[in-house]
Amino acid sequence: MPIRILVVHGPNLDLLGRREPETYGTTTLEEINRSLETLATELDVELEIAQHASEGAIVRTIGEALDRFDGILINPAAYTHTSVAIRDAVAAVGIPTVEVHLSNIHRREEFRHHSFIAGVAAGQISGFGVQSYLLGLRALVSLCSS
Amino acid sequence: MPIRILVVHGPNLDLLGRREPETYGTTTLEEINRSLETLATELDVELEIAQHASEGAIVRTIGEALDRFDGILINPAAYTHTSVAIRDAVAAVGIPTVEVHLSNIHRREEFRHHSFIAGVAAGQISGFGVQSYLLGLRALVSLCSS
Amino acid sequence: MPIRILVVHGPNLDLLGRREPETYGTTTLEEINRSLETLATELDVELEIAQHASEGAIVRTIGEALDRFDGILINPAAYTHTSVAIRDAVAAVGIPTVEVHLSNIHRREEFRHHSFIAGVAAGQISGFGVQSYLLGLRALVSLCSS
Amino acid sequence: MPIRILVVHGPNLDLLGRREPETYGTTTLEEINRSLETLATELDVELEIAQHASEGAIVRTIGEALDRFDGILINPAAYTHTSVAIRDAVAAVGIPTVEVHLSNIHRREEFRHHSFIAGVAAGQISGFGVQSYLLGLRALVSLCSS
Amino acid sequence: MPIRILVVHGPNLDLLGRREPETYGTTTLEEINRSLETLATELDVELEIAQHASEGAIVRTIGEALDRFDGILINPAAYTHTSVAIRDAVAAVGIPTVEVHLSNIHRREEFRHHSFIAGVAAGQISGFGVQSYLLGLRALVSLCSS
Amino acid sequence: MPIRILVVHGPNLDLLGRREPETYGTTTLEEINRSLETLATELDVELEIAQHASEGAIVRTIGEALDRFDGILINPAAYTHTSVAIRDAVAAVGIPTVEVHLSNIHRREEFRHHSFIAGVAAGQISGFGVQSYLLGLRALVSLCSS
Amino acid sequence: MPIRILVVHGPNLDLLGRREPETYGTTTLEEINRSLETLATELDVELEIAQHASEGAIVRTIGEALDRFDGILINPAAYTHTSVAIRDAVAAVGIPTVEVHLSNIHRREEFRHHSFIAGVAAGQISGFGVQSYLLGLRALVSLCSS
Amino acid sequence: MPIRILVVHGPNLDLLGRREPETYGTTTLEEINRSLETLATELDVELEIAQHASEGAIVRTIGEALDRFDGILINPAAYTHTSVAIRDAVAAVGIPTVEVHLSNIHRREEFRHHSFIAGVAAGQISGFGVQSYLLGLRALVSLCSS
Amino acid sequence: MPIRILVVHGPNLDLLGRREPETYGTTTLEEINRSLETLATELDVELEIAQHASEGAIVRTIGEALDRFDGILINPAAYTHTSVAIRDAVAAVGIPTVEVHLSNIHRREEFRHHSFIAGVAAGQISGFGVQSYLLGLRALVSLCSS
Amino acid sequence: MPIRILVVHGPNLDLLGRREPETYGTTTLEEINRSLETLATELDVELEIAQHASEGAIVRTIGEALDRFDGILINPAAYTHTSVAIRDAVAAVGIPTVEVHLSNIHRREEFRHHSFIAGVAAGQISGFGVQSYLLGLRALVSLCSS
Amino acid sequence: MPIRILVVHGPNLDLLGRREPETYGTTTLEEINRSLETLATELDVELEIAQHASEGAIVRTIGEALDRFDGILINPAAYTHTSVAIRDAVAAVGIPTVEVHLSNIHRREEFRHHSFIAGVAAGQISGFGVQSYLLGLRALVSLCSS
Amino acid sequence: MPIRILVVHGPNLDLLGRREPETYGTTTLEEINRSLETLATELDVELEIAQHASEGAIVRTIGEALDRFDGILINPAAYTHTSVAIRDAVAAVGIPTVEVHLSNIHRREEFRHHSFIAGVAAGQISGFGVQSYLLGLRALVSLCSS
Repeated sequence: MPIRILVVHGPNLDLLGRREPETYGTTTLEEINRSLETLATELDVELEIAQHASEGAIVRTIGEALDRFDGILINPAAYTHTSVAIRDAVAAVGIPTVEVHLSNIHRREEFRHHSFIAGVAAGQISGFGVQSYLLGLRALVSLCSS
Repeated sequence: MPIRILVVHGPNLDLLGRREPETYGTTTLEEINRSLETLATELDVELEIAQHASEGAIVRTIGEALDRFDGILINPAAYTHTSVAIRDAVAAVGIPTVEVHLSNIHRREEFRHHSFIAGVAAGQISGFGVQSYLLGLRALVSLCSS
Repeated sequence: MPIRILVVHGPNLDLLGRREPETYGTTTLEEINRSLETLATELDVELEIAQHASEGAIVRTIGEALDRFDGILINPAAYTHTSVAIRDAVAAVGIPTVEVHLSNIHRREEFRHHSFIAGVAAGQISGFGVQSYLLGLRALVSLCSS
Repeated sequence: MPIRILVVHGPNLDLLGRREPETYGTTTLEEINRSLETLATELDVELEIAQHASEGAIVRTIGEALDRFDGILINPAAYTHTSVAIRDAVAAVGIPTVEVHLSNIHRREEFRHHSFIAGVAAGQISGFGVQSYLLGLRALVSLCSS
Repeated sequence: MPIRILVVHGPNLDLLGRREPETYGTTTLEEINRSLETLATELDVELEIAQHASEGAIVRTIGEALDRFDGILINPAAYTHTSVAIRDAVAAVGIPTVEVHLSNIHRREEFRHHSFIAGVAAGQISGFGVQSYLLGLRALVSLCSS
Repeated sequence: MPIRILVVHGPNLDLLGRREPETYGTTTLEEINRSLETLATELDVELEIAQHASEGAIVRTIGEALDRFDGILINPAAYTHTSVAIRDAVAAVGIPTVEVHLSNIHRREEFRHHSFIAGVAAGQISGFGVQSYLLGLRALVSLCSS
Repeated sequence: MPIRILVVHGPNLDLLGRREPETYGTTTLEEINRSLETLATELDVELEIAQHASEGAIVRTIGEALDRFDGILINPAAYTHTSVAIRDAVAAVGIPTVEVHLSNIHRREEFRHHSFIAGVAAGQISGFGVQSYLLGLRALVSLCSS
Repeated sequence: MPIRILVVHGPNLDLLGRREPETYGTTTLEEINRSLETLATELDVELEIAQHASEGAIVRTIGEALDRFDGILINPAAYTHTSVAIRDAVAAVGIPTVEVHLSNIHRREEFRHHSFIAGVAAGQISGFGVQSYLLGLRALVSLCSS
Repeated sequence: MPIRILVVHGPNLDLLGRREPETYGTTTLEEINRSLETLATELDVELEIAQHASEGAIVRTIGEALDRFDGILINPAAYTHTSVAIRDAVAAVGIPTVEVHLSNIHRREEFRHHSFIAGVAAGQISGFGVQSYLLGLRALVSLCSS
Repeated sequence: MPIRILVVHGPNLDLLGRREPETYGTTTLEEINRSLETLATELDVELEIAQHASEGAIVRTIGEALDRFDGILINPAAYTHTSVAIRDAVAAVGIPTVEVHLSNIHRREEFRHHSFIAGVAAGQISGFGVQSYLLGLRALVSLCSS
Repeated sequence: MPIRILVVHGPNLDLLGRREPETYGTTTLEEINRSLETLATELDVELEIAQHASEGAIVRTIGEALDRFDGILINPAAYTHTSVAIRDAVAAVGIPTVEVHLSNIHRREEFRHHSFIAGVAAGQISGFGVQSYLLGLRALVSLCSS
Repeated sequence: MPIRILVVHGPNLDLLGRREPETYGTTTLEEINRSLETLATELDVELEIAQHASEGAIVRTIGEALDRFDGILINPAAYTHTSVAIRDAVAAVGIPTVEVHLSNIHRREEFRHHSFIAGVAAGQISGFGVQSYLLGLRALVSLCSS
C-alpha cells in the first residue's frame, strides 16, 4: 500500500501569490499543491491536502489523521509561534511530522524564531520557498520508509 | 431548581485513550463524561458537556452560558497557556469557574506552568487524572451552594 | 465611489452591555455599530461589520477583504495580545488598518500591554470607549483619502 | 489496615480566623482539622495532623513519615514558594503527596505563582478554602487506593 | 464657559518639517498648531499651546495647569519612554489627559514600545501624523463633556 | 498604657562586634539593645527584644505578638531577601512594622536589593548603623501615636 | 560652626496637599519645610531648602553645594528611578547624602522599587510621610557629627 | 560548468559512528560523504568536503571559498550556537549557504535552539540524520540553479 | 594542636541510603561520617559532625564555631540554593569553608545551578558522592595548613 | 570656510578636577577645552563649546545647531544612559556626531554599558581621558572632510 | 594495566606564574604538572599532559583520547563558559571527565558562573589552586577504579 | 628605545575590500596596515602586525607579547562578542590594550553591543573605518608615553 501523507497549510497561505509578489513571490498555493502532487506521483505516495485559517480546524484535521495517514507535512504559518494545541495534536496522534516554512523564520522578527511545533516534529525545513515543501515531502517519505 | 453546570473540554481531549496509553492512560473522554454524570446524579446537579478543538468555539460556548448555567468546569487543555480570549470570556460572564487538568501541569514543560485561566477562575485542580474532574465538580457544587 | 470600510470586532465583544456594567459600561455592541453607521453616513463611507469569536474566522474575513475594502477598523480584543495569524493577515492584504480598544490597554495587566497587531497597523487608539471606534473611523477615512 | 495520612500545615496557618476575617475568613485551623477528621472517618482513613512555623520542622516531619504514612496532605503556605528543602524531603520519602492552598495562588502576587513543591507532588488544589483540604484528602485517598 | 485645553509638545517637535521630510513629513509644528486651533474653534474650546525641550519645564507646565485647564493633550515625544516625573505630574493634577504620537510607536525601536505616560492617561492615539493631535483633541473634548 | 514595641533581630546579628570590626563595626548587639532601651525610656515606650537565627522562630514570635504589642521593629537580616513566611506573618498580625538595616542594602549585592518584608512594612530605614534602629523606633512610636 | 544641610525636594512635591488628600495627605510642602526648620533649630543646624522640577537644576544645585554644605537631605521623587545624573552629582561632590521618600516606594509600582540614588547615598528612609524627612535630618546630623 | 559546492563539517563530526550508536547512529562521516558524492554525481555537481574541529579553520575555509564555489553546505555542529566568526565569514563571502543538522536542534537543550548561522544562511534543515545533508544538497543546487 | 574541623550536613541527608538507592546510592550518612573520621585520623585532624534540617540551626552552629574550629566542611543540600542566612554566617565567622555536594548540581534542575554559599566559600566540590566529602576534607586541611 | 564643530559637555563635567582627583584626575573642564582649542587651531576648525546640566538644554543646543555646525562632539555623561531626547535631537538634526567618554564605560556599572546616543552617532570613543576628546575631534574632522 | 589519565589545560594557563603573582600566585604550569606527576606515581596512574590555546585543538585532543585514556582531567579555563564544542567532545568520547578550576569561579564575574562542561562532566572542583588539580586527579582515579 | 606596538586583526578582516564594497568599503587590510605603518613612522613607534582567523592563535599571539611589546592595538572582530579567552589573555599579559572596530558596533545587531574585551581594555574606539585604527594607535602611543 502506498504511503499516505497529509499536507496541512496554515492560516493566510491561501493568499500566496495574490499580493505583494516582491515579498511572497508569485507562486500561488495551487501551484505549490500541484508541485507536491507531481513529486508525490514520482515518489509513489498518496497526498491529501488541507488549508485552514483556524487553529481548531488544524487540530481537528490532525486528530482525524489517526490511522488514516503515515506522515504529516505541515506549514503551521503563524500558529508555529503561538499554538500549543497544534503541538499537542501532533504529539497525541504520534504520526511522523515534518515542519516546513517558505521563508527562513530565523531571519525574521524575534517572535518568529521559536516554534512550538519543532519540539514534537521529526525535523524542520525553512527558507527554500516551494522547495521547502518538496524537500519536506522527500524527508517524510524517507522517514516513513525506514 | 438543581444547580446547572457546564463542562467544557478543550482541544485534543477527544483523542484520550485512543493512543499512547502509557502516557495518557486508557480512559476515554466518554468514560470521563460518564463518571461526571454519575457523580452529578449523586450530587443532584445537571450537566451539559461540550468538547471543542477551537478557541473561538469555547469562547462562544462560555458566552452563551450566561443565564443558563450556575458554574463552569473547564479543562482548557492547550489553551490554558495561550488563550486570553477564553480568560476574557470567563471574566465577562462572571459564572464561578473551576479549572482542571488531568496531568500535573507544574511538572511538565516550562510553558505549561502558566495559566491564563487561573487568574479568573475560582480555583485550579491538577494532576489527578479523572479525579481532577470529579473533585472539580465537587468544588463547583460547593461554590454554587455557598 | 465611496470609501468601503470593514469593521471587525473580536471575541467577547458581543457580550458588551449585558453584564458587569460597572466595568464594561452599558453600551451594547449594537449601539456601537449604530454609532459607527451614523458617523459613516455623515462621512459618506460604506461600512460592513463583522464580529467573530474565532481567530480563524477573523483571519478569513481579513483575507477575503482583498479588493473589496479600502480600510479595516479592527478591535482584536483578546487576540491583540496572542495572534500572529491576524497580524499576518493584515500584513498580507496590505489594506490600511486602524486598531482600536475600548479600554486603555496600557493601564491593564502586563500581558495586555503588547499588541501583535500594532506592528502592522497604521495606528492605534485605545482608552476612549465607543469614541475609540469613532475616532478610528475618522482616522481611517483620513488615511484612505490622502 | 486503614490508609494513614499525614496532614502538614505550614507557617502562619495557626493564625487563621483570629484576624482579618474579611481576607482570611473566620474559619480557624481547628475547624479545618475537625472537618478533615470528619471526612477521614467517613472515608475510613487515619489522620495525623501537624502545624509548623519552621521549614526545618516540616522537613523533619516529612522525613520521619517514612514507613509510617501512606500519603501526605500538605499546605506549605509561604514555603511553597521558597523551600527547596521541603521539595527534597517530599521527593526523598517518595510518599504520594497532595499540595493544597486555601486561596488561588495564581491570582495573587507574581512570586506566589511558582511552587517548588508542585514539581514533586502528585497534584495541586488551590482556591477553594477549607474545601481545598477536603478535596485534597479525597484525592489522596483515591491515589493510595489505586 | 468653554472647555479649556492645554496642549503640550515635548522635545524636538520644534524641528518638525525643517529636516528629513522623507521621515518626518513636511508639516511644521506651526501648521499642527494652526490645525489644532481651527478644530478648537469648530469644537468651541480654548487652547493654550506649549512646547518644551526640558522634562522639568513640562512637569512645571502640567503642575501649573491645576484649576486652569479641563484637559491636557500631550505628545511627550522622547520623554514618553523615560519620564516618571511627567507621569507623576499628570497623576498629581488629576486632569484628564490624552497622549498622542505622530508615528506609530509600536512599529519603532523596542525601547519606544513602553510609555510611562499611558499608565495615567485616559487614552493613547498613535500613528496618524497631524491627525493624531486632531483625534486626540476630539477625544479630550468628548471626555470633558461627558 | 505605654506603647509596647517588639524588637526582632534576625540571623547572625548576635555575632556583631565579635569579628571583622572593619566591616561590621565594633558595636555589639548588646550595645544596640542598650541604646534602644535608653531611647525607649526617653520616649516612654516598653520594649521586648528577641534575636532568632531561625525563620520559623521569627514567624512564631510575630504570630504571638498579636494583642501583646502595638508595633514591631524588625531587622530581618538575611531573611529580608528570602522569607515569604515572615512577610506573611507581618501581614497576618496587622501590627505596624518598621524594617531596619544596619548597612545600606541598596549598595550591596544585587540579591540584597529586594526585600520581601518591605511590601508589608510601614516603611524601611537602611544604612545608618545603630542609628537605623533608633530612627526606626522613633518612626514606630510616631506611627503608633498617630 | 553649625552643621549646614542642603534640603532638595524633587519634581511635583510643590503640589503636595493641593490635590488628592486621600492619597498624598493634606500636608503641604511649606508645612514639611516648617517642620524641618523647627527640628533644625532644635538640633542646632542650618538648613537651605530648594525644590526643583528639573533634573538639571537638581544636578546644578548639588554641584554648587561643594564646600558650602556638610550634608544633603534629598527626596528625588520621580528622578529616584530614572536619574543617573543626580547619582553622579551626589557621588562627585562627596557630601554625605540621605535619601528620603514620603511613601514606601517598595509597596508601589515595580519601576519605583529601584533607586539610582541609593547606590551612592549613605542611607535611605521611606514610608513615613513627613517623618521620613525628620528622621532623615536626624540621621544626617548624626552622620555629620561622627 | 558544473555547480561547485563546498561541504563543511564542524567539530566532533569525525567521531560519528565510532561511539554511542544508540544516540548518534552507526553511520560514519565517511558514509555521509559517500552518500553526498553519490547524490552529487546524480545532480551533476562538484563537491569539496572539509571537516574541522577549529572555528578558525572553518572561518578560513569559508573565506577561501570566494570565487571557487557556488554554494556552501555546512553543518556547524557546536559552533552553530557560539560562533559569530563563522556567521561573519558566511556573510562576507556572500555565497548561498545551507545549514544542516543531523538531529532536530529544537528538541535538544535550550542553548541549542539558537543558531548564529541561520541569520545569514538561505535556509536551515534539521532532524533528518544523513537525509539532512542530502536534502540540503538538493536545496543548494536548486538555489544555485535559479 | 591538631586542626579542628566542623562538618555540617544539611537537610534530608539523614535519609541517605534509606530509600531510592538507585538515585541516592546505598551509602548512609553514618557511613559517610565513618569514612570522614577514618580520613581525619589519617590526616591527624579533629572532626565534629552535625546534621540539621533547620536553616536556623545551621546558622547557629556556624556562629558558635567561632574560635572553636579552624575549618568548616559543609554540604548545605537544599539550602545551597535558598539560604542567604547561611551565606552570611559563613562570611561572618570568617572560617575557611569548603562546600561539597554528593551529586553534580550543575547537571540537575536549573534552580540547583546557583549556590548562595559558593560566593563566600573557599571552593566547591560537586559530583563525586562520598568522595566529595573526602576530597573536601583534604582541601580544607590543605587550606588550614598553608 | 573652516569646518565648524559644536562641543557639548553633559552634566557634572563642570566639577572635573575640583574633587576626588584619584578618581577623576586633576584635569579641569577648562583645561580640556583649552586642549581642544589648541588642536582645533592646528586642524584649522572652528569650535563652539557648551556645558549643560540639563537634558533639555542639551536638546535645545543640538536643535539650534542645524545649519550652524558641520559636526558635533558630545560627552553626554550621565544622559548617555537615560536620554532618548538627546538621541532624537542628534537624529533630527542629522549632523555627524561623535560620542566621547573620559572613562571606559564598559568597565563600570552594568547600567553604564548601554548608550542611547551610540545608536545614532557616527562612532564612539571611550576610556582615554582628555585624549578621548582630542581623538574625537580628529575623527569628526576626518568625517566632515570626507 | 595502570589507569591512563589525559590532563588538558586550557588557554592562557601557560602564562601562570609569569605575571601578576598577587592574582595568579607564583606557581607555574610546569610546577602544577610536576605535582600532578608526583601524585600520579603515588597513585600508580599514567598521565599525558596537554595545553592548548585553541578550542579546536582541545576538541581534537579529546576526540583522539577515545580508546587511549580511562579518564580526563580538564581545566577548560575561559572555554568553560563559551565552548559547546568541548562539551560535545567530552560527551561524544564518553570518558569520565573531571573539571577543575584554580580559582572559585562562583566568586568571579557573573559570566564565569556558568560552565558548559559541568553538564557532561562527572564532577567539578574549583577554588583550591594547585590542589584543585590534585583533588581532581584523586577523584578521577576513584571514578576509574569503581 | 621606541615604543613597540602589536597590532592584532581578528577573523575575516583579510576579506576586507574583496567583496561587498557597499558594506565594507573598498579599503583592503593591506591598505589599513600601510596607513598604520605610515602613522607609526610619523609617531616614531615600531609595529608588528598579525591577522588570525583562530581565537587560539590570537590568544597565543597575545601571550607571547609579554616583554616584547608596550601596547596592543586589537580589532577582535567577531571574537569581541564571544571570546573570554582573548579577554583573559589581555588581562594576563597586562599590556595596555586599545580595542578598535571599523563599524559602530552599537548600531548593529543586539549581540554585537556587548564586548568581552572592553572590560579589560584601556578604551574602545568604534565606527570610524580605517580612522578607528589610526586613532587607536594615537591613543595607545599616548597611553604608553604617559
